[in-house]
Amino acid sequence: MSKQEFVKEITKRDDDFAQWYTDIVLKAELASYSSVKGSMVVRPTGTALWENIKQVIDTRLKELNHENVMMPLLIPEHLLLKEAEHVEGFAPEVAWVTHGGESELAERLAIRPTSEVLFAEHFKDIIHSYRDLPKLYNQWANVVRWEKTTRPFLRTTEFFWQEGHTCHETFEDADKEARRILEVYREVCEDYLAIPVVQGNKTQSEKFAGAVETYTNETLMYDGKALQIATSHHLGDNFSKAYGISYLDKEGKEQFVQQTSWGITTRSIGGMIMVHGDDRGLVMPPRIAPTQIMIIPIAQHKEGVLDKAYELMTSLKENFRVKIDDSDKKPGWKFNESEMRGIPVRIEIGPRDIENQQVTVARRDTLEKVTFPLDETLSDNIQRLVDDIHHNMFQAAKKRQDEKTHHAETMEEFIKYIKEGGFVIAPWAGDESVEEAIKEETGATPRVIRFEDQTLDLTGLKDIWNGEPAKYMVYWARAY
Amino acid sequence: MSKQEFVKEITKRDDDFAQWYTDIVLKAELASYSSVKGSMVVRPTGTALWENIKQVIDTRLKELNHENVMMPLLIPEHLLLKEAEHVEGFAPEVAWVTHGGESELAERLAIRPTSEVLFAEHFKDIIHSYRDLPKLYNQWANVVRWEKTTRPFLRTTEFFWQEGHTCHETFEDADKEARRILEVYREVCEDYLAIPVVQGNKTQSEKFAGAVETYTNETLMYDGKALQIATSHHLGDNFSKAYGISYLDKEGKEQFVQQTSWGITTRSIGGMIMVHGDDRGLVMPPRIAPTQIMIIPIAQHKEGVLDKAYELMTSLKENFRVKIDDSDKKPGWKFNESEMRGIPVRIEIGPRDIENQQVTVARRDTLEKVTFPLDETLSDNIQRLVDDIHHNMFQAAKKRQDEKTHHAETMEEFIKYIKEGGFVIAPWAGDESVEEAIKEETGATPRVIRFEDQTLDLTGLKDIWNGEPAKYMVYWARAY
Repeated sequence: MSKQEFVKEITKRDDDFAQWYTDIVLKAELASYSSVKGSMVVRPTGTALWENIKQVIDTRLKELNHENVMMPLLIPEHLLLKEAEHVEGFAPEVAWVTHGGESELAERLAIRPTSEVLFAEHFKDIIHSYRDLPKLYNQWANVVRWEKTTRPFLRTTEFFWQEGHTCHETFEDADKEARRILEVYREVCEDYLAIPVVQGNKTQSEKFAGAVETYTNETLMYDGKALQIATSHHLGDNFSKAYGISYLDKEGKEQFVQQTSWGITTRSIGGMIMVHGDDRGLVMPPRIAPTQIMIIPIAQHKEGVLDKAYELMTSLKENFRVKIDDSDKKPGWKFNESEMRGIPVRIEIGPRDIENQQVTVARRDTLEKVTFPLDETLSDNIQRLVDDIHHNMFQAAKKRQDEKTHHAETMEEFIKYIKEGGFVIAPWAGDESVEEAIKEETGATPRVIRFEDQTLDLTGLKDIWNGEPAKYMVYWARAY
Repeated sequence: MSKQEFVKEITKRDDDFAQWYTDIVLKAELASYSSVKGSMVVRPTGTALWENIKQVIDTRLKELNHENVMMPLLIPEHLLLKEAEHVEGFAPEVAWVTHGGESELAERLAIRPTSEVLFAEHFKDIIHSYRDLPKLYNQWANVVRWEKTTRPFLRTTEFFWQEGHTCHETFEDADKEARRILEVYREVCEDYLAIPVVQGNKTQSEKFAGAVETYTNETLMYDGKALQIATSHHLGDNFSKAYGISYLDKEGKEQFVQQTSWGITTRSIGGMIMVHGDDRGLVMPPRIAPTQIMIIPIAQHKEGVLDKAYELMTSLKENFRVKIDDSDKKPGWKFNESEMRGIPVRIEIGPRDIENQQVTVARRDTLEKVTFPLDETLSDNIQRLVDDIHHNMFQAAKKRQDEKTHHAETMEEFIKYIKEGGFVIAPWAGDESVEEAIKEETGATPRVIRFEDQTLDLTGLKDIWNGEPAKYMVYWARAY
């Protein structure tokens, strides 16, 4: 297969972004379809990506004294019904179990769409005194939400996530926790996935069903649509009052706990694809890539080449995740394959390289090639390259995000910028009917009120839609 | 609370084994009940135990070139129905989803009781040539089986496990894989959980629904009942024929793949409790214990004690999982608490210890105390102690298992030994109606035909139940 033919297999990103996305998911073998509508089979590369993301988050959460637990998959209907806003938000998306074996159940069971109510019931059991607080729990789980239109990773009826659930003595402690976790998510997104985030609050209409406040990390995809990549909710005492989670404080007075919940899902892999991928295929951020380096022997039938390539792999394995492609395919085919799969670094080693005591190294992000000496400096050189690839990918994404972020002074500008794609910053008076109207007119929703914009002096500024005095500076966008 | 009172909280093991078990699960905070019938909340210690078991198995499977994937939770009914024996085995235990959101589904969906059919569908998609073989897949997942009587860890409607699914070119390759994995499980059980296993085949009536052959690791609990702790199945081409998983061999001829599947579940934690626990509570095997060492300061209000205790914790953390109990409870209470929770090693450090440059170390398995110098030899001394605890726990379990294993020469002996509890070894002619009769009469089932007994010369030996010439030497027992 010639290079031309091979590259042609993936739809051009600017021709049909949705098809390009699907092509990458399937051809880079991240996931495939199954006969289960809306569910996906996550293949070895997709699973390894998720395991690496998991590892980063789990380690960080444990450093912050969080403990993992495993809650039931199924929720009895009566338990789900106790927190009114929460039910209203989730009931339309719930898959119901009605039969066990041959018999109909006395009460139907929801497959968890999220686990606030299960944690609430458990917290009520185990929390009695201020000495039991804080409780900092997390679980790695699958959840099901009955979605009408689905796409691998981005929106699937079953998805995988981590969901944190914590209880605190005071409103302020809970707020601190919700914001701390938002920062953990920022680290994961920016320092590992190389995806820049915009941090702040959701509007009341966009917050989590049952929360007092939802904090979000918003990101912008290549096509200018936003993706909410990870959110953290301050639940206040909404659930603790509905489920009776109280404790005796130091003065012996009964108090309701203040709670948070927060999650990041396999959706983040969809974000990674849509921020970094290009016409050649996937581009994986090196710190999270299951394979960081692919070694491709050139003229591998020649004596000593394969031996040297294996020797190289063994030495690099100490510090990197390395594979070798010693199949009988042509090197050009292997180059394309490695690029399509998004492997950050490709090392070519052939007879001439061995003779010159060097290797040829190609980076996936810029497709540039360099030559490194094949000696004890190689590992450090590769480490610098890997770090540079990470920073370069982050900067490229940041630059694009900045270029696609506009202030709108008028309704016309707002509509124009939304149509072009990207974030549109505009003042808003806080009227929910305006949110509705904008959504209808442009398809855009309020994505985030940035932390740094919450202390702006908005005096004199007017909501561009209804002329009322502005209360918030809002980032708007069409979103996934 | 006096020591006496504290210990009383757990039912005596010999008085009521079932209640003793439940007491330990709840009081050592491994799991607790929820309002979801038959499901459990796995608490931080139980979850950490499972994570450690997972880590050992996952690492070993990856060394053996297995890859993790994530399959859907739900199975469309038509897909489940394709392999007749398999359906028959699992249909009575399936939880059915019939509604998504507000609408009834066109086809009901089973929550996976196991995932052979999902893997089969996927394998059919991705396997075409002998070059695609072997495929060595594994997933970490939750499954649901609608059980009537449930007990935490031992039998729950939802449980957690790893399920491996592999495809091979030949029947022999698949057999080799199934046996290799049985050996991985033996390592986990014996070298980490300190539980001795009896390895061999299941009888045809006891094998996995859809398998050609089931290999098992059988274990014996303190009460003399057997527990099948991990099984590995040779599926032959039963599923590949039913689901059409074929490949072109080197000669270009179409062949069906030969498959295996295998799993180990959270049940292993139940086994760990029932093999090692005693009247004081849980006894955790040190290599898998989430906390290996509990440091308990004595007279901690005295100057320098807590500082020294923390210093000790920091230095031990390099090599062990260590915690400190610096709460304001009395040391005696802390000793009991640490024993009840099964922490393998307790280190006491008080003013006199500090003066004498030593620590007092108590081991959970034998309750013996030793004194170690508080110097650079401590870590090595503790490591030797930890290894000794592991070996001692394994040997104690092995000794009890041997003592509870008897040859039966007559029906009367068989019944007597089964009543006493333990394995009864008896020749069997292979008649399934005899299996049925024994089960009815004694509650015992054939647990395993040991590998080493499969080459015995049984000439002249007779089935003690029907007098027919013996074909197999079988281990029988009542089982969990």
